[in-house]
Amino acid sequence: VSRRIDEIGEFGLIDRIAALLAAEAPAGPAVQLGIGDDAAIWTPRPGHAVVISTDALIEGVHFRLDLMSWADVGHRALAANLSDLASMAARPGAAVVTLGLRPDLLVEDILDFYRGMARLGVRYACPIVGGDIVAAPAAIAISVTVFGEQARGEDGAGRSLRRDAARPGDLLAVTGPLGLSAAGLRLLLADPAAAARDPDAAPLLAAYRRPEPRVATATALLAAGVHAGMDLSDGLAGDLPKICARSGVSAVVDLAALPVPAAVRERFPDAWLDLALRGGEDFELLVAAPPARLAAAGAALAAAGLPPLTVIGAIEPAGPIPLWLRHPDGRREPLAPGAFDHFHHA
Amino acid sequence: VSRRIDEIGEFGLIDRIAALLAAEAPAGPAVQLGIGDDAAIWTPRPGHAVVISTDALIEGVHFRLDLMSWADVGHRALAANLSDLASMAARPGAAVVTLGLRPDLLVEDILDFYRGMARLGVRYACPIVGGDIVAAPAAIAISVTVFGEQARGEDGAGRSLRRDAARPGDLLAVTGPLGLSAAGLRLLLADPAAAARDPDAAPLLAAYRRPEPRVATATALLAAGVHAGMDLSDGLAGDLPKICARSGVSAVVDLAALPVPAAVRERFPDAWLDLALRGGEDFELLVAAPPARLAAAGAALAAAGLPPLTVIGAIEPAGPIPLWLRHPDGRREPLAPGAFDHFHHA
Repeated sequence: VSRRIDEIGEFGLIDRIAALLAAEAPAGPAVQLGIGDDAAIWTPRPGHAVVISTDALIEGVHFRLDLMSWADVGHRALAANLSDLASMAARPGAAVVTLGLRPDLLVEDILDFYRGMARLGVRYACPIVGGDIVAAPAAIAISVTVFGEQARGEDGAGRSLRRDAARPGDLLAVTGPLGLSAAGLRLLLADPAAAARDPDAAPLLAAYRRPEPRVATATALLAAGVHAGMDLSDGLAGDLPKICARSGVSAVVDLAALPVPAAVRERFPDAWLDLALRGGEDFELLVAAPPARLAAAGAALAAAGLPPLTVIGAIEPAGPIPLWLRHPDGRREPLAPGAFDHFHHA
Repeated sequence: VSRRIDEIGEFGLIDRIAALLAAEAPAGPAVQLGIGDDAAIWTPRPGHAVVISTDALIEGVHFRLDLMSWADVGHRALAANLSDLASMAARPGAAVVTLGLRPDLLVEDILDFYRGMARLGVRYACPIVGGDIVAAPAAIAISVTVFGEQARGEDGAGRSLRRDAARPGDLLAVTGPLGLSAAGLRLLLADPAAAARDPDAAPLLAAYRRPEPRVATATALLAAGVHAGMDLSDGLAGDLPKICARSGVSAVVDLAALPVPAAVRERFPDAWLDLALRGGEDFELLVAAPPARLAAAGAALAAAGLPPLTVIGAIEPAGPIPLWLRHPDGRREPLAPGAFDHFHHA
């Protein structure tokens, strides 16, 4: 007897699909990374590796048009994919977009969607080169696929930020504030009109509606010798366990070091930590490297005029507890891993 | 004031999107072919060109699960994309898939979808290397993106079958029967149970449910010097005008030469010509080349054990009528261009 998808969950289904594909159609040597990472790496010929990522977004599940404009939806759809390329430190190349649309939608709205996407794409040298538009009877369905080029080391070999490269003794760092996007969404869900009137809410709403993929930062970090990292789409408590599992390590996060803006702490005195740890969609990078190398990487970012790193914790040997939260007095408590649940997002 | 999508149609919308993207975010020299062809060509570095195609399919619009199995849906979704690569004579490399699924669907059905896709993919060396699965409240949404490598000539330059390369004096040919798939769909729409019981209907149903992309044939034709062509997804009367428009020519189709199987003619004595000209989803190749070259190409196909070409007409200089149908007695009538309407497909 077959079970329903919601009985085994998205990750259970993906595991079964990956096992089926490995048995029915193994990918072969041209595929360096397949299902299960932020992106796939396809090496059609020696010396050239294409990094590929794809995301689907469904109206009412991943976005609501009463909470953001069509241009915001376009920006976010491409930004999430560019962030997947950044999580591998790949250089963006091109994108394709498929849309399932209701026939009664307005042409100008669809053009605004592409405008939001195109304006982000031009800043990251990622043109939209094709796609497909079809009729969908109910919810709007968006799928974006991006292609990039894998970075190369001085030896010519392909290099990426990887989830499996963190080592005990590494420090953990992030490239920007945590919780802003989730706080912006919470304001919108509570009262969109009030949020729109409040000038102090603008940075929170912008973080939610117009996230900025850390493409240049990722390239600079990799060039400075940082090899372990990923982008934060499911929140620190959702994503850091993926690095721990793939690298065979545990991690400790310093509560006092978390870069949660005052605007988030003040508006959500009881919830700011949850927003920072589990809110998701920060699209900042989470990286790990030995202290001296991380310091050098920070200097390289400053020299390039890129946002600074914030050290938020450390990597430790694997143990029975994969993730710890450390209080300012040194006391530790286990931090429950928790991915953002897209089914309850918007 | 903005109009609704259904007031300007899919092609009107795509034209406006292409114009917007050209203004906001021109693609630059790394993109050889962008929006408007079967596939895009992205050249990340000199000497290496990636051919990209993407398609979206919505349940109830593009497929119905009462007319085919989940494995058929997977096969068709990948086959349509591989056919787009064949239409450029590109070598398949890999594919990514995004799915929007209702949470109450059965796990085994989704695995059957991937099984159908994987078994086709393994025959064309096109592994599925990634994707995304999300919740969709209503209709199932599928988006497949394939990437392949552009073929190269002896001089190392990229080569593709192109829509703009047909010349007056060329003969027109197709790589297989026309109308089979549309006839199969019509049988299923009329009475699925009767179609299933009828052994003579099997080839028609198979053509609809399990189309075979002409990947190897396309490569062999290009190698034999055939440069003008595309795949038939919208029917001969839907697709041949695209070659005429892009090449600046007109075309004449010989009624008596159309390779419409007896099974289609006999079952649909009044409709077989419409099925062959406008039914769509044949996924055969339509090519044009000078007679001697086409003969040599046919010999190359035979030597390689590939299906033969059928000459169905000729390319002529541009005139006021882009498309003619020629009767056995030499009489001509204008053939109205007509694309398959996906909104009324299933």
